[in-house]
Amino acid sequence: MATVLSSTSSTVLLDKPLQLDSGQALDRVTIAYETYGELAPDKSNAILVHHALTGDQHVASPHPITGKPGWWDRMIGRGKPIDTDRFFVICANVIGSCMGSTGPASDAADGGRYGMRFPVITIRDMVRAQVALLDALGIGQLHAVVGGSMGGMQALSLAANFPERAARVLAIATTPRHSAQNIAFHEVGRQAIMADPNWQGGDYYDSGNTPDKGLAVARMAAHITYLSEAGLTGKFGRRLQDREAKSFGFDADFQVESYLRYQGLAFTDRFDANSYLYITRAMDYFDLAEEHGGRLADAFAGTPARFCVVSFDTDWLYPTAESRAIVHALNAVAAPVSFVELSAPYGHDSFLLEVPSLDRVVTGFLNG
Amino acid sequence: MATVLSSTSSTVLLDKPLQLDSGQALDRVTIAYETYGELAPDKSNAILVHHALTGDQHVASPHPITGKPGWWDRMIGRGKPIDTDRFFVICANVIGSCMGSTGPASDAADGGRYGMRFPVITIRDMVRAQVALLDALGIGQLHAVVGGSMGGMQALSLAANFPERAARVLAIATTPRHSAQNIAFHEVGRQAIMADPNWQGGDYYDSGNTPDKGLAVARMAAHITYLSEAGLTGKFGRRLQDREAKSFGFDADFQVESYLRYQGLAFTDRFDANSYLYITRAMDYFDLAEEHGGRLADAFAGTPARFCVVSFDTDWLYPTAESRAIVHALNAVAAPVSFVELSAPYGHDSFLLEVPSLDRVVTGFLNG
Repeated sequence: MATVLSSTSSTVLLDKPLQLDSGQALDRVTIAYETYGELAPDKSNAILVHHALTGDQHVASPHPITGKPGWWDRMIGRGKPIDTDRFFVICANVIGSCMGSTGPASDAADGGRYGMRFPVITIRDMVRAQVALLDALGIGQLHAVVGGSMGGMQALSLAANFPERAARVLAIATTPRHSAQNIAFHEVGRQAIMADPNWQGGDYYDSGNTPDKGLAVARMAAHITYLSEAGLTGKFGRRLQDREAKSFGFDADFQVESYLRYQGLAFTDRFDANSYLYITRAMDYFDLAEEHGGRLADAFAGTPARFCVVSFDTDWLYPTAESRAIVHALNAVAAPVSFVELSAPYGHDSFLLEVPSLDRVVTGFLNG
Repeated sequence: MATVLSSTSSTVLLDKPLQLDSGQALDRVTIAYETYGELAPDKSNAILVHHALTGDQHVASPHPITGKPGWWDRMIGRGKPIDTDRFFVICANVIGSCMGSTGPASDAADGGRYGMRFPVITIRDMVRAQVALLDALGIGQLHAVVGGSMGGMQALSLAANFPERAARVLAIATTPRHSAQNIAFHEVGRQAIMADPNWQGGDYYDSGNTPDKGLAVARMAAHITYLSEAGLTGKFGRRLQDREAKSFGFDADFQVESYLRYQGLAFTDRFDANSYLYITRAMDYFDLAEEHGGRLADAFAGTPARFCVVSFDTDWLYPTAESRAIVHALNAVAAPVSFVELSAPYGHDSFLLEVPSLDRVVTGFLNG
């Protein structure tokens, strides 16, 4: 019998404005977060897990809208690689998102929604908010900071900008900077959202109509980049959906079409289109070397942390070469780092899926 | 001084309905085509060039809307690899397109535009129309049939279905069937078009409003797949567009964003959204093995033609493995075939760009 992992949902209202990379400050910042396990009296057993673009704080507890298990339920829990019998696990919704932390759907000081008045944020701004949460919790140094994809960017950014705050840094399926191709795919998604007449310049919250069609197209385009070509072929191939022969029409004849349409549509139930704009922008702006004078190694100069970098051989969104660049930078400053490219058929999404070798790497690194 | 290549623009109205794979027949089919060079008295020197998804018959003559040189101007002309001093070159707009051949923007029998009443067509249907054109021109056997991308699909389809009509088949950067990933990208584009309220179920021709925003998003998504990641990085990297620093807004900060927006917008000036739906559908339906009992080799059984198959090492849309599958099928029926994977940095679009090694392959094959 599966035991339900007990989690605590909380919010904290930061007592100071959050200074942003843009030069602006964000006032009255709320951070919504979940915790699992118990914080040790000396507060030495905390692990901060950062979520990815469309993730949220419900890392190991059911999603409040979809009812589905937490997005990393397989990784976090009693006896799991991130063992809640030993560790106190924190996962916070990033600012700019839409699951309780302050974002474009939140009320601004004038009582109206921010919409596109929300300031453009960066990955470092997201991390600043989470460090403020750690301050509020009285946690000085984390046992580890962990993240995949955009979560990995945050983990690296925390290591670079708040080097004393984490003893271990585990960065999975990520990159030190968004490439031209990464930016290009995000720009397609943003243009799809902004082309939706329901978007209304971002002021759709009180209209009763949300830009679901544009957001669904954005999600569909992005979703392809999360999967490998071989994975798509294995999962769908050219198999038809609930029919014996092609329809010679524009219905979803192929399973892969039906799957993508469903993924696009389902996404609009749980995500805010403006949040998608802001978070993709933050990812596109991410360039850890640029933030540190143009040399990636300088981002990690003097870091006291141990690092573990993991890539997947079928990830074409953030291919292994990106992870290798991180490792080379860490080597250049003599930081202890282990690096592994894991073999898994699922493409970028491998970090979320059943990959036992990842479990072993995570277990080994966190307990080493 | 560059000499202008003389071309002849013609249309032919087929005297019989075109029987389609769907079981329907298309009546009063017009085919618009260009020719270059002179047809030999024995009609033995004709080369049929098939265009790609968004191409047209203006293969080596200026585009009537954009004024730009023909899309394969570098390949076709006096003294060029497809030498118009020697060969009579024909390039016809595919049916379903929008440059003069019958497509969804054409008038149906009732005088109104077809719109989505246009029948769903296949690559083989496009080829049937072009074989009818050859009949109208009195050309029995072509010296060669040549095409890249969707043009390559047509070349293979012609070889498989009309084996006596071409002595040589040159298939470049193409595939024997659309993969799940290929279908997925096309489906994103179709959903983007259909999500545009100006699309109006395809009945936009007389509304004064065309679904340009949706079509532009479709083009942007597709355009990324035509380029290599390394090519995008080399061309744009993370360079900013006409500014010194990030704007912390949603303008096109990055050159790659600006480029993609331009590509999307410019495309809407010259292409019909419904044609985009129909032609992508035809490509997704393409599976040469399926058409021939499930075994690709059977598509080429008894072919009298010589083949040349060319792929590019950076093409991730139709990677070299797809070309290899074609070659293996041809080997299985003992058809003479030469195969080369060329090295070029431009991804799938390499077949359109400055790749001197391609010129040498084309010259050698056509004159051998």
